[in-house]
Amino acid sequence: MTTPLISAAERQRIRSGAHSGPTAGLAPGHVQANLAILPADWAGDFLRFCQANPKACPVLAVSEVGDQALPTLGRGIDIRTDVPRYRVYRDGVLTEEPTDIAALWRDDFVSFLIGCSFSFEEALLADGVPVRHIALDRNVPMYETGIACVPAGRFSGNMVVSMRPMTPRDAIRAIQITSRFPSVHGAPVHFGDPAAIGIRDIAAPEHGEAVPIEPGEVPVFWACGVTPQVAIRNARPPIAIAHSPGAMLITDLLNTQLSVL
Amino acid sequence: MTTPLISAAERQRIRSGAHSGPTAGLAPGHVQANLAILPADWAGDFLRFCQANPKACPVLAVSEVGDQALPTLGRGIDIRTDVPRYRVYRDGVLTEEPTDIAALWRDDFVSFLIGCSFSFEEALLADGVPVRHIALDRNVPMYETGIACVPAGRFSGNMVVSMRPMTPRDAIRAIQITSRFPSVHGAPVHFGDPAAIGIRDIAAPEHGEAVPIEPGEVPVFWACGVTPQVAIRNARPPIAIAHSPGAMLITDLLNTQLSVL
Repeated sequence: MTTPLISAAERQRIRSGAHSGPTAGLAPGHVQANLAILPADWAGDFLRFCQANPKACPVLAVSEVGDQALPTLGRGIDIRTDVPRYRVYRDGVLTEEPTDIAALWRDDFVSFLIGCSFSFEEALLADGVPVRHIALDRNVPMYETGIACVPAGRFSGNMVVSMRPMTPRDAIRAIQITSRFPSVHGAPVHFGDPAAIGIRDIAAPEHGEAVPIEPGEVPVFWACGVTPQVAIRNARPPIAIAHSPGAMLITDLLNTQLSVL
Repeated sequence: MTTPLISAAERQRIRSGAHSGPTAGLAPGHVQANLAILPADWAGDFLRFCQANPKACPVLAVSEVGDQALPTLGRGIDIRTDVPRYRVYRDGVLTEEPTDIAALWRDDFVSFLIGCSFSFEEALLADGVPVRHIALDRNVPMYETGIACVPAGRFSGNMVVSMRPMTPRDAIRAIQITSRFPSVHGAPVHFGDPAAIGIRDIAAPEHGEAVPIEPGEVPVFWACGVTPQVAIRNARPPIAIAHSPGAMLITDLLNTQLSVL
């Protein structure tokens, strides 16, 4: 079993600038999280949006106002420096992708950390269910769908999903396994026909990288923690900061601790 | 909540000859069971076959040799009279379908009662997942597949499956719900392309009645308690007695008692 020291060491490496890319495979066993930072006067609406859309936006932690720490996720976390690459949205438009946000920090910022499918992928692999994008060493393909999230205040938008191709047999097992992890997106939201959820071209994901679907496989779709970035683009707060998809916050929590069964 | 008196009353009605057809919908809430009766010198192999193929042949109870009672399933059960319609196999060939088997009873007979999907269908309906053949008041469609069961002694054969068409969304929920019921076939074994499990014509089930698959739905397949009858046909014991598909033993157990979660 890994120890929290591994996660702390990886955060330190990221904080130092030695790693600024995707975090898949780093600190095995540890929970990684999606990030959304909003000014306090936008935070209430955003938290209600997450509460109303728990499959896409399962909240693992919310910071105190202006506080860069996240004590329930790990000792010594500084959210201004510990994510490898950030995305800064101004009035809903992506303007920059820095590797730290110390210069942008405001004392009214609230950080939301949202569950990530890396946690359940580890459980799938441990159970012998292959995960195509990991086997191919690619970022998971992510698609903007036609599934409307439940709006809350100024936040609204369609769900983003991640896709993993599987045989029906593996998909059934994957539904069982991921159902045990409601705080990291839980069971899939769809399988099979992409058009049924408004995906136009399965070969052209809006985020991440495409992967091949082999004969006898079906695409299986999970709600994705990039969904909040769609809602932020739509809501157009004067400033919001998220992670670059795939470059997550590494926490001290263990994936197994998120399993409810 | 229903009480055991309802199940006993239905058994009495069946025993009297007043009901000789399918048992779907009778004694709501109570477990119904598939039947296989074999001579004692065939029973050991058959029990090993069931043990090796638990999804198709989940054993709820095995009688004492020569004993018509099944005390763990219900007070006063007489397996010679309490199933609405039986199927008698001689040397693996179906020869008759009587409504009682008192005249055929032997003191070396062993009865096997095997879980039935009626139990999880009740849980599906209670959760708002529609079940097509129930809505259409038909027997569930059942197919002989190319999925080989694990052989045991003289018993071998391919799995029989039941099929329910569902939207992917309902199928995902159904996988969660039926996973809670391992003793009544548990999670599906397949969904989607029928040919992938050796089904030639989805419109022509070998047992039960066909149901339409609507646009946007996929067929979802569960292992079925008719599988033992295929194994009996192949093994050709001098005599074996089963139930007529759909005409089950009604027990005093409650479906909810079979849920593991």
